[in-house]
Amino acid sequence: PHSAPRQRPARLPPGLSESDFSTAVKDLRQSIGAENVVINDQPLKDGWYLEHPNTHDAFHVVEQEELVCSAVVYPGSTEEVQKVVRWANKHLIPIYPISIGRNVGYGGAAPRVPGGVVLDLGKRMHSILNVDGENASCMVEPGVTYFKLYEEIQNRGLPLWIDCPDLGGGSVLGNAIDRGVGYTPAGDHFANHCGMEIVLPNGELLRTGMGAIPGPDGTDSPVWQSFQNSFGPKIDGVFSQSNFGIVTKMGFWLLHEMPHRSYCFTFAQDEDFPRIVEAIRPLAQKGVLGNIPQLRHVVQELNVTGRRKSTFHDGEGPMTREEIRRAAKELPLGDCSWVFYGTQYGDAQSVERQLGVVKAAFSDIEGTKFWLPEDVPQDHYLHSRVQVNSGVPILRELDWLNWLPNAGHLFFSPITPTRGKDAQKIHDMIVAGHKKYGFDVFPTLCIAGREMHYIANVIFDRADADQKRRAVALLRELVDDCAKEGFGEYRTHLLFQDQVARTYGWGDQALMRFNETIKDALDPNGILAPGRCGIWPKRFRGRGWEL
Amino acid sequence: PHSAPRQRPARLPPGLSESDFSTAVKDLRQSIGAENVVINDQPLKDGWYLEHPNTHDAFHVVEQEELVCSAVVYPGSTEEVQKVVRWANKHLIPIYPISIGRNVGYGGAAPRVPGGVVLDLGKRMHSILNVDGENASCMVEPGVTYFKLYEEIQNRGLPLWIDCPDLGGGSVLGNAIDRGVGYTPAGDHFANHCGMEIVLPNGELLRTGMGAIPGPDGTDSPVWQSFQNSFGPKIDGVFSQSNFGIVTKMGFWLLHEMPHRSYCFTFAQDEDFPRIVEAIRPLAQKGVLGNIPQLRHVVQELNVTGRRKSTFHDGEGPMTREEIRRAAKELPLGDCSWVFYGTQYGDAQSVERQLGVVKAAFSDIEGTKFWLPEDVPQDHYLHSRVQVNSGVPILRELDWLNWLPNAGHLFFSPITPTRGKDAQKIHDMIVAGHKKYGFDVFPTLCIAGREMHYIANVIFDRADADQKRRAVALLRELVDDCAKEGFGEYRTHLLFQDQVARTYGWGDQALMRFNETIKDALDPNGILAPGRCGIWPKRFRGRGWEL
Ligand SMILES: Cc1cc2nc3c(=O)[nH]c(=O)nc-3n(C[C@H](O)[C@H](O)[C@H](O)COP(=O)(O)OP(=O)(O)OC[C@H]3O[C@@H](n4cnc5c(N)ncnc54)[C@H](O)[C@@H]3O)c2cc1C
Ligand SMILES: Cc1cc2nc3c(=O)[nH]c(=O)nc-3n(C[C@H](O)[C@H](O)[C@H](O)COP(=O)(O)OP(=O)(O)OC[C@H]3O[C@@H](n4cnc5c(N)ncnc54)[C@H](O)[C@@H]3O)c2cc1C
Repeated sequence: PHSAPRQRPARLPPGLSESDFSTAVKDLRQSIGAENVVINDQPLKDGWYLEHPNTHDAFHVVEQEELVCSAVVYPGSTEEVQKVVRWANKHLIPIYPISIGRNVGYGGAAPRVPGGVVLDLGKRMHSILNVDGENASCMVEPGVTYFKLYEEIQNRGLPLWIDCPDLGGGSVLGNAIDRGVGYTPAGDHFANHCGMEIVLPNGELLRTGMGAIPGPDGTDSPVWQSFQNSFGPKIDGVFSQSNFGIVTKMGFWLLHEMPHRSYCFTFAQDEDFPRIVEAIRPLAQKGVLGNIPQLRHVVQELNVTGRRKSTFHDGEGPMTREEIRRAAKELPLGDCSWVFYGTQYGDAQSVERQLGVVKAAFSDIEGTKFWLPEDVPQDHYLHSRVQVNSGVPILRELDWLNWLPNAGHLFFSPITPTRGKDAQKIHDMIVAGHKKYGFDVFPTLCIAGREMHYIANVIFDRADADQKRRAVALLRELVDDCAKEGFGEYRTHLLFQDQVARTYGWGDQALMRFNETIKDALDPNGILAPGRCGIWPKRFRGRGWEL
Repeated sequence: PHSAPRQRPARLPPGLSESDFSTAVKDLRQSIGAENVVINDQPLKDGWYLEHPNTHDAFHVVEQEELVCSAVVYPGSTEEVQKVVRWANKHLIPIYPISIGRNVGYGGAAPRVPGGVVLDLGKRMHSILNVDGENASCMVEPGVTYFKLYEEIQNRGLPLWIDCPDLGGGSVLGNAIDRGVGYTPAGDHFANHCGMEIVLPNGELLRTGMGAIPGPDGTDSPVWQSFQNSFGPKIDGVFSQSNFGIVTKMGFWLLHEMPHRSYCFTFAQDEDFPRIVEAIRPLAQKGVLGNIPQLRHVVQELNVTGRRKSTFHDGEGPMTREEIRRAAKELPLGDCSWVFYGTQYGDAQSVERQLGVVKAAFSDIEGTKFWLPEDVPQDHYLHSRVQVNSGVPILRELDWLNWLPNAGHLFFSPITPTRGKDAQKIHDMIVAGHKKYGFDVFPTLCIAGREMHYIANVIFDRADADQKRRAVALLRELVDDCAKEGFGEYRTHLLFQDQVARTYGWGDQALMRFNETIKDALDPNGILAPGRCGIWPKRFRGRGWEL
């Protein structure tokens, strides 16, 4: 990925003059060390996944210089986070906390407000504070990645698993805060957290769950990682997908390692999509499916080979169904339409029985084929699912980035009920939209039970301004199309957060008014991540910031 | 249970004169109908479980006239709830919403503030708004009991289960709001809800989860009962165990019926308690235990027979271990110490295998015996567990009320990690406290995974003022004893809510300050359930209301 030279001067926090800002920076440098406050005035580099920038959105779908910060700050402790927060209140500077900032496809490390100060927590706060083998739990700081936690557990020889998203370089804490998903039985990351420590927008420190009970002699409560609630309101949820606090510690439940068997089913006809979904529904609801399986369109078999689109397709525009068919024929799974990647857990006998039930459910769908890892070559994607679905962090899905030159990801992620007609409706809108705007459709459905996260990955060329314009237009249109039918996204890129939030508008935006009430109560100066998830503090509200 | 004649005039809402109140009542009667506003000036009757009063705490552990309301109001719709809320704001009258009010052992139907107005939602708002067989979910109003929902599902012939607490007469919604527990795999009621409609303290109406997206043509979103979140903060939790809103509709996930097998283990020695807990831990964490099993002390074998304590014991004071042993010898399970009641789910073969694992785990503990329902008489408690653990609402645990004349329940409910030494520490404090204050110890541990809800049922004679005084003293002491060791309660009776809330005081009461900030933002006039779970609105705070 290339980097155009900057056209504009470094951004300042909104409302601050250059001299205001430099006074503020001086102030902060004195308080937490000069080396921990870095002005963002150098050329912007997109880097790549493992060397991602914290200065802007590496997968910029608007101009690279649009979603940038004015400075990056590296606190080294909870106390320093509190200092930064008090400083932001004093100078009225918006701060935007990230844990690792690998939120690729959703805005990366960029702040919602250009010129905000990014609080990169992970660089200096990356301790695994505890791994409790007895309780099968851990407590981590923001900078702990899946890779690091995995390694620690391996080093200790504990028979425990972590749950990973498709890319293992993210933050265990940051991903959960953004309500990300993984693929073992503990795939709902936020649901599997237990206890938080949070710096509030006024600088106060809060502990949730049983962490609110002090343990004897200054220790932490022995129950903190065992029970999620405290007495009174269950508040943890309000710190996910919000701008109500900065999470400095978070506990998670780990899994006990289990025998496991990954597999896939291929289906013959595109049109069988709703029938596949209908077959999945009872399996998912009854817990027959051991994990969060994925249903992927066969086109994804092409992109995970890591080959360029141009090897399969000539010229402009999206691939045709015929081209996909022709290319798929040459690949291990052959010509098919949808691929269901699952994993069953337990001893051989019980896995056998579970697989019998799954096979029976799909048996009515003509042309269905069943595959085990031993049926496909070692480099086939099924082997990657074996790893992810048994808690091993990997980077396989980065291969998608070879699809186009200068490829960037942008995710459209609506929630569909696990119901054929609803899923088909959403799928049709997505297909039509991609066609209209000239993009390949890359559908992955993560099947979480009664619903599926439909993740459509829009891959675009970051050097192509027109593609970027079209990608944004596509997203805007899909958000509105889905909303008209009562469907909404579980998560979205910074650019679309206002729009998506507005679609959750029942009762004349009652939810937003509620969120704003909480925001104003907790953050009267509006310093913490203004605009994140569509929530603007009073100071910014209705002043042209909403997109 | 008897009823003493009232000694004092009917209570008024705090701060209102008799004429203020009668003006306010007239106002409300005009708005929602005279018959739906009933002044609480008649003799108080304790009734019994199925004819429970909504005028006061039927299991009064202070004077019967202490925890009373000034009036009971019966809204018939969400709009009427909104009217009542606006009325309360206008007249500054505290209102206390209940769904059914069978919160026995935790305060029943009583408001925290004497003279508050009870909003009895269940009497007129008791529709099952939807049962979705495909999605295995339902949507209910506050007045829907477990019995009613069960009956509806039976009438429709749907192969679905509900999850019930030990007593089936409660409100599906109200129990979940108070974060109650049941005993199937969906025993965490709040975790299995999906979507809420809420009247906020300012009278506004809010829908959470995907309910915030309007469906097409004025319908509800098709995703409301499928996915728990919306976009942005996950807010539902703040409406549990709080006074931030009045829930008028709530969705729940149902279970698919399954083959199941209930059983129990008896253990020989009291002293094996920590070893039993250690054996349970991996089973619970690994999901081998199919449900939320209970570990009960053998003394509970006596009380669920429904016989009087006096059949086993002469004179005053708690039963001795020797008396318990002698009596237990005559009962089906014989002389033992602890009884573990579990249920495994699945086909016969898989249950057999699961039971093998459970048996192996307990095999090291000498004198352990395994029992199936066919091993015990038809009236043995194990047959009740078969029902509760397969979603059938019953009332068996009411038999406890025969233990003493005029018996009342009061629960002490700390959370213990599923770890022998912690559980033993809590158990020892509970035993010592009961001994000091002269009560029988009735321990039930509900095993939810990494933690257990230790429910100690203090049974007292409501006609005996000294017993009541001692019961209160016992609770106060246990709350403090546990807190010193870092343990806290998951729920508590109205009288102890301030004290319990204070124990969650890490960071100089940071959690309480947070809750108060939210409370003041949402309820500036402080009308909604002041003091519930220790949260007082500004208007009341620090003015002598805290207990
Ligand atoms: C090919 C590909 C595959 C992917 N697969 C998955 C997948 O399977 N599952 C999935 O969930 N995602 C997936 N993603 C999306 C994304 O990469 C991951 O979710 C990633 O883990 C998020 O970045 P992060 O962990 O570095 O979090 P961060 O970027 O650190 O945090 C994410 C956001 O949360 C907030 N936040 C973070 N930390 C804090 C804090 N301490 N206090 C307050 N707020 C905070 C911030 O707003 C931040 O922007 C995928 C992306 C790509 C490109
Ligand atoms: C022998 C015995 C066994 C028991 N076993 C169990 C058990 O297994 N599990 C268990 O959980 N409990 C148990 N209980 C305790 C209690 O009886 C139940 O929890 C009961 O379901 C609670 O009463 P309810 O359902 O009528 O709720 P309600 O009394 O209607 O509600 C409880 C509280 O929630 C709040 N609330 C209710 N509705 C609303 C609303 N719509 N909006 C806002 N706030 C609201 C109010 O503060 C109210 O006081 C037991 C009690 C006894 C005596």
